[in-house]
Amino acid sequence: MNGAESVVATLVRAGVEVCFANPGTSELHLVAALDRVPGMRCVLCMFEGGATGAADGYARMAGKPAATLLHLGPGLLNGGANLHNARRAHSPILNIVGEHAGYHLQYDAPLTSDLNGIAKAVSGYVATARSAATIGQDAARALAAARTGAGQISTLLVPADAAWSEGGRLADPVAPPPRAKVAEAAIADAVRALAKGEAMLLVGNGAVMRQPLILAAAIARKTGARIASIGRNPRLERGVGTPVVERLPNPAGPQTAALSRIRQLILIGEEVPVAFFAHPDRPSTTTHPDCTILHLASPHDDILDCVTRLAAEVGARAEDVPLQQLARPEISPGALTPDSVAMVLGALLPENCIVADESITVGRSLYAQTVGAPAHDWLHLTGGSIGIGIPMATGAAVACPDRKVINLQADGSGMYTLQALWTQARENLDVLTIVWANRSYKILRDELTNVGLPEPGPTALNMLDLGQPALDWVSLAKGMGVEGRRVEDVTSFAQAVRDGLKVKGPRLIEVVL
Amino acid sequence: MNGAESVVATLVRAGVEVCFANPGTSELHLVAALDRVPGMRCVLCMFEGGATGAADGYARMAGKPAATLLHLGPGLLNGGANLHNARRAHSPILNIVGEHAGYHLQYDAPLTSDLNGIAKAVSGYVATARSAATIGQDAARALAAARTGAGQISTLLVPADAAWSEGGRLADPVAPPPRAKVAEAAIADAVRALAKGEAMLLVGNGAVMRQPLILAAAIARKTGARIASIGRNPRLERGVGTPVVERLPNPAGPQTAALSRIRQLILIGEEVPVAFFAHPDRPSTTTHPDCTILHLASPHDDILDCVTRLAAEVGARAEDVPLQQLARPEISPGALTPDSVAMVLGALLPENCIVADESITVGRSLYAQTVGAPAHDWLHLTGGSIGIGIPMATGAAVACPDRKVINLQADGSGMYTLQALWTQARENLDVLTIVWANRSYKILRDELTNVGLPEPGPTALNMLDLGQPALDWVSLAKGMGVEGRRVEDVTSFAQAVRDGLKVKGPRLIEVVL
Repeated sequence: MNGAESVVATLVRAGVEVCFANPGTSELHLVAALDRVPGMRCVLCMFEGGATGAADGYARMAGKPAATLLHLGPGLLNGGANLHNARRAHSPILNIVGEHAGYHLQYDAPLTSDLNGIAKAVSGYVATARSAATIGQDAARALAAARTGAGQISTLLVPADAAWSEGGRLADPVAPPPRAKVAEAAIADAVRALAKGEAMLLVGNGAVMRQPLILAAAIARKTGARIASIGRNPRLERGVGTPVVERLPNPAGPQTAALSRIRQLILIGEEVPVAFFAHPDRPSTTTHPDCTILHLASPHDDILDCVTRLAAEVGARAEDVPLQQLARPEISPGALTPDSVAMVLGALLPENCIVADESITVGRSLYAQTVGAPAHDWLHLTGGSIGIGIPMATGAAVACPDRKVINLQADGSGMYTLQALWTQARENLDVLTIVWANRSYKILRDELTNVGLPEPGPTALNMLDLGQPALDWVSLAKGMGVEGRRVEDVTSFAQAVRDGLKVKGPRLIEVVL
Repeated sequence: MNGAESVVATLVRAGVEVCFANPGTSELHLVAALDRVPGMRCVLCMFEGGATGAADGYARMAGKPAATLLHLGPGLLNGGANLHNARRAHSPILNIVGEHAGYHLQYDAPLTSDLNGIAKAVSGYVATARSAATIGQDAARALAAARTGAGQISTLLVPADAAWSEGGRLADPVAPPPRAKVAEAAIADAVRALAKGEAMLLVGNGAVMRQPLILAAAIARKTGARIASIGRNPRLERGVGTPVVERLPNPAGPQTAALSRIRQLILIGEEVPVAFFAHPDRPSTTTHPDCTILHLASPHDDILDCVTRLAAEVGARAEDVPLQQLARPEISPGALTPDSVAMVLGALLPENCIVADESITVGRSLYAQTVGAPAHDWLHLTGGSIGIGIPMATGAAVACPDRKVINLQADGSGMYTLQALWTQARENLDVLTIVWANRSYKILRDELTNVGLPEPGPTALNMLDLGQPALDWVSLAKGMGVEGRRVEDVTSFAQAVRDGLKVKGPRLIEVVL
């Protein structure tokens, strides 16, 4: 067994089933090992941002890490932006990155770069394999690092000679440390805070999964607190059968208004709400100056245990929580607008679907119109780095082959990682991509006023305009083997969605707004 | 004048004319400043790898830096792979990267990342602007850093509040240090080495521009030395009127064979030749163990001065060097192969064109067949990170609006940064993109044998296959506003090239191999 084979065997033994790969010469022994060691599905991506974004989507839905296989420093750089999003999602990902053979590094061959520096900048854990004899153990440890807490980005750098040399050893799985329990004192603090009134439970990450969410809603109901979440969660279980949770607006101004009466903010799986960007003469935080913030459970803590105990303390019962009933909007024919497309989705969203949401500005009405749809999962853009939607949908579809994935995709953002459509075609993944073609970086147009530039000049406006020439997403999809359709009114959009939901396999709808 | 305006004004005053941009909220004041301060052309790219690759192509042809405008850590990560290539090309590039306002960083907003760590990993020079009052000076210094030696990657991090605050000051240009002259002793060493025989001048970077190249060829002719270059130069002036220079093969085995009789290797603008990758049981270097290597001039030295002095020492005269005459191959109809497409290009390459070459495996015959074409520039993939071709062609076309740019593009590599086709359409750039559609990572197939895996299994072969589904580059181009044509035999390829050369503006030919 060579080093590469010991890595694959160790990962398979520890339960890793999928590798999203864009390999090069330095990773060929790892690729070859996938043939010699059974048990790992290898999904080819044409760009590394597709691989890391897919690993994020996979982790969110599978609840466990996929591996990525990336080529040297440039490969890790290309995957870096979606690793940023995955870090903000607390997704467990294990990057296996090839490096030149150890003895070759001194020659500074063309592809040599500061791989360690790059890895440190995008990872929570970085290690370099030293030899074939120990690389299995290195892989087991790196996997445990990925699985620490809710999850983190773990990167194992693999010199080519450690991969190709004989003497590899299968390593036992390394257990990640157990998730921390919230201290009794913190639970007591929360009880006191709730008793003071003007309180909000701000839930996020693991706390917006159905079971803890019902308990948190029960606590809120029992104590008269509000319960809210921010629209930046790795995975939100919602729709029929889930408790209704207020959504805090993303823009700082409305978020500040929504929080203005709150004096006790209790964070469960969530961080302190802050402005996405600084704006001249506006505060960075969105809570009231007199608001006391209690960090009850971090995203990495045992959140279910925390809400179970807090519910017991306040006498809240899950069965008292009213759950969402089926309530779909009507489709009314007419022009395509952010509101009308939201109604179509609310009317048609199928039970048990997964929504991979990178809608950006178009998405602001989606949430309200789909709240009464059948139970579904909603995956957000967590880190603000655009270009996650198509890869995330790809990874979610790999994780859940029996569920329909609906990717709500802003056009400007989709262009960063459109290559993942090809992977969807190649793997025949069940993804319906809906592209919002407003042909602009619309959010930046809105932001100009926020940053104090209400009257932009022609150059600035031109930098936000994606309409000259207009992108033709039907052709782009066709170029990668995905059948697409362009729609320009509500009725044809609704029909295209119905048709897309009927087939199993990738389809794309370009919605001209 | 705010800080952002002082940056733009300072750069314009120092001669920067172009900015390749993919901005976000944190860069909006810099974008707005482009309207208020005249003199900078701003070219929008849909992905940051397009911006940095275009800046590389621009620098190679303009001989001076462009700026890039990138959004926070993720934007710099997305641009990082082509910054790697630009670093290996010694191209001067000034990255302006927005960062959160200084006071906002502590809140760890979603887009906060280790920007400084990322910048250090991909740049030769990094600075962070501290205030509006000093940011003009910071920009002038960062530009001088970019222009040091042949050039380097210089990255200025701009907190949003330094950009939007009033009090900006126009700064005077800062002169980069003069390029170092080669020491007399090194010239004398070279004279002695040449006298020993079995010598080779290995020329690269600035030494493969026509004027120094003629002098180097004269030295070789006079002393009986061989003269060669490696196919990894930022810009090679070749064709009619240039001296013929041997090209060392890229693969380590043939390169070692080509160098086997050389005992005195004199490096002029070039580094020690090494294997691109380590391979089991093969040496990392390609020179003979008994070969003495003389580092005469580094890529950053004053190379023209060096070869002028060495020529004088050995009594070599430029006018004695035989120059390439026009000698084009015939086009013979038939199937499309790497050889037959090379003959078509040799027959049709127009005078004064710029070839942006990311042909990878298909390109191995191109060089020989085009040596007798009219004078042209050839831009290589310098750093081995694929995805440079389309952006590099874009930047070269911006730098040289009166010259036809021909992008010879491998399909797998082109997919990394295909978004740059949209920029070509938007700016109506005169680029003819020729995609070699072999529908595989062919070079990896070849490398399997080199790394000791002559009999790969189905998974490995599947990872190198881009044919299921086959990419349709004509549709991809259409999706971004570029007219394309697919050809499947030599006659239609030749006609498509002729047609593409006749029009001014972007066109694409998909060559099915």
